[in-house]
Amino acid sequence: MTDYNSLFSEDTHSFFRSPVRDIFKRVDLNAIYSFAGGYPSAETFPLDQFKATMGEVIDKYGGKAFQYGATQGVTELREVLSARYGVPLERIQITSSSQQGIDVCTRILADPGDVVLTSNPSYLGALQSFRSYRAEVAGVPYHPDADGFKAAYEAVIESLFAAGRKIKFLYVIPDFQNPSGETLSLKERKILVELARRYGFLIVEDAPYRELRYSGEPVPTIYSLAPDIVLHLGSFSKIFAPGFRLGWIFGHPDVLDKIYVCKQSLDLCPPVFDQYVAAEFMGSGRLDRNLRNSIDLYRGKRDLMLSLLERNMPAGVKWTRPEGGLFLFLTMPERFDSVAFYDTALDAGVAYVAGSFFHTDGTGRNTIRLNFSFMTPERIEKGIVLLAGLLRKSL
Amino acid sequence: MTDYNSLFSEDTHSFFRSPVRDIFKRVDLNAIYSFAGGYPSAETFPLDQFKATMGEVIDKYGGKAFQYGATQGVTELREVLSARYGVPLERIQITSSSQQGIDVCTRILADPGDVVLTSNPSYLGALQSFRSYRAEVAGVPYHPDADGFKAAYEAVIESLFAAGRKIKFLYVIPDFQNPSGETLSLKERKILVELARRYGFLIVEDAPYRELRYSGEPVPTIYSLAPDIVLHLGSFSKIFAPGFRLGWIFGHPDVLDKIYVCKQSLDLCPPVFDQYVAAEFMGSGRLDRNLRNSIDLYRGKRDLMLSLLERNMPAGVKWTRPEGGLFLFLTMPERFDSVAFYDTALDAGVAYVAGSFFHTDGTGRNTIRLNFSFMTPERIEKGIVLLAGLLRKSL
Repeated sequence: MTDYNSLFSEDTHSFFRSPVRDIFKRVDLNAIYSFAGGYPSAETFPLDQFKATMGEVIDKYGGKAFQYGATQGVTELREVLSARYGVPLERIQITSSSQQGIDVCTRILADPGDVVLTSNPSYLGALQSFRSYRAEVAGVPYHPDADGFKAAYEAVIESLFAAGRKIKFLYVIPDFQNPSGETLSLKERKILVELARRYGFLIVEDAPYRELRYSGEPVPTIYSLAPDIVLHLGSFSKIFAPGFRLGWIFGHPDVLDKIYVCKQSLDLCPPVFDQYVAAEFMGSGRLDRNLRNSIDLYRGKRDLMLSLLERNMPAGVKWTRPEGGLFLFLTMPERFDSVAFYDTALDAGVAYVAGSFFHTDGTGRNTIRLNFSFMTPERIEKGIVLLAGLLRKSL
Repeated sequence: MTDYNSLFSEDTHSFFRSPVRDIFKRVDLNAIYSFAGGYPSAETFPLDQFKATMGEVIDKYGGKAFQYGATQGVTELREVLSARYGVPLERIQITSSSQQGIDVCTRILADPGDVVLTSNPSYLGALQSFRSYRAEVAGVPYHPDADGFKAAYEAVIESLFAAGRKIKFLYVIPDFQNPSGETLSLKERKILVELARRYGFLIVEDAPYRELRYSGEPVPTIYSLAPDIVLHLGSFSKIFAPGFRLGWIFGHPDVLDKIYVCKQSLDLCPPVFDQYVAAEFMGSGRLDRNLRNSIDLYRGKRDLMLSLLERNMPAGVKWTRPEGGLFLFLTMPERFDSVAFYDTALDAGVAYVAGSFFHTDGTGRNTIRLNFSFMTPERIEKGIVLLAGLLRKSL
């Protein structure tokens, strides 16, 4: 019997598995009312257009679309992104998913014991990455008013400095945050830049939901405020399709060069055919037309969710009212335990993600994250009525 | 001016860039005679069949093919691999390229200072991965006779043990090795297993070229000899198309579980649509029919290369005669420097990879690797005549 444990690296002892992904192993998402994943609706995948675009790519590029590609990504896709977002080519690296963007930024920046600063709660997949490199995650309470916001960050940073800790970067999802759904104001974004400059750390701005805005006005990206110290992560998963596993990083060429060399040994290059399909879909205007439809669809679902919560949830339950993205975040009375309640909900056929999984410090057990993009309106309604009924019995 | 260097992780100081990939940044592969890359011939990509298969996948799976997928890979692809190679499902993890397979095995096994044992020379992309995690690479002279083979490994292992070093795994490409083109005999494979058991390390068997055999008889995989201590890496790049970035790992479930959790934070899941296309292409028998054509094509190119070398190379140049794969390996007289000669060759319009880049210790400056799969027979002939002429002048 081989003792594998004696061979595993130190990092493996800090790996932790995603409870979200483990839910998907346990249950068939289509057989239950699932508010759990961050899945786009399959309705937003225009299958005929995908098929046509693929044919066009094969006719236009031939074998080149199936060959090895450049490590920084295929030029055609980088050009389309450059034109769309006004970022120069040498500041664009394509990634094999924006999750890879988070992971590779952590890899090139964080040593064991270094600190990654993030809001509390924050994206679970990012917490997995940070901890897998044995970085310490320091959470800052998420979203008080703007004055409290600055003070909360300063308090955490100062105490870390006093303890001699090295903060390498701040990880933030400024638009329709995962899990809270909330958006940072311009003032708050400027505060983060000011703090990063004052204390000498970088900002990793994760913006997968940015273009899914259903109401209100867009706020400038943090990257646009400070392109020398911000790594901006974008994703095709929510505006195109997650099955292609494509994202991008905008950043300073000196930092991107480290990511480029790292990516050579990670996987050589992003999926090549998928990149050409994304370039063609985006460059031809199809992506924007399709995105407008997705936004209309998701706006309707968000509004439906909000009105269903209003009508069905028992007293004492509060929730966020996001201007975009995929999630609503619910806060129950203090005594409620969303982890313990989870099996009750799943047995009844409804899934969510317990909010404590997004918290950096094990708090938030009275919170839950609900996705509103994945299911049909009919199923959203049945699911919320069911969940509210269960909650009413338990609260 | 931000001091990025003070923020980069320790690992980044051990990153080194691939000279092969940097060649591709400098020159247009189609404008020169390129023996440099490990590229399949674009002739082996049946574009019409790819297009048809993609249409079938979209019709059959619909939106599911564009949604997030399971971290271990889509079941349909794992089932096809299971049937083809006789490996149980729970021992199969799909990777986003076999380069990722190498990288993730290193990640879960090697701490800084741990030793990875490999042949000398060995695959450059693997050396990049090992060093990027600050593992020490210990090279063993590649391919003496079988008796010398065992003694060479034992000598390196014993000296490492005497120095108190921890060997985590042996990395080996047993079939048509990159760069040498040579294949380990069954006896040699058994020796490696015996050594791994005796000294308590794992074996990472990298087999991207295994199915590209043009003559001789297949030798059992090392994995088949010791499935409890071998991680077997497979690749779709050479038998299907590299642009899909798909590979697989066969291994013990306890080890695969670490890889599974690691992959959650690396990139969540492999490219989903590409996996369905691979499953459909392989499962329908198209892959095997196409592979037979590729093998015939490459056998002809190998034989052409060998006869061209015979007719054109100056005295004192030796080369390997591989039974498969994509590469021939040339050894020049001791005084020859293939790194210094490289610019002369490139100026004249011919590219190769200097053999020293594959060596773990900077030796092998009198060797070069030549690929025979990428170019047409006509271009192979012109390229070899050109290269031989340059060598004749310089030797």
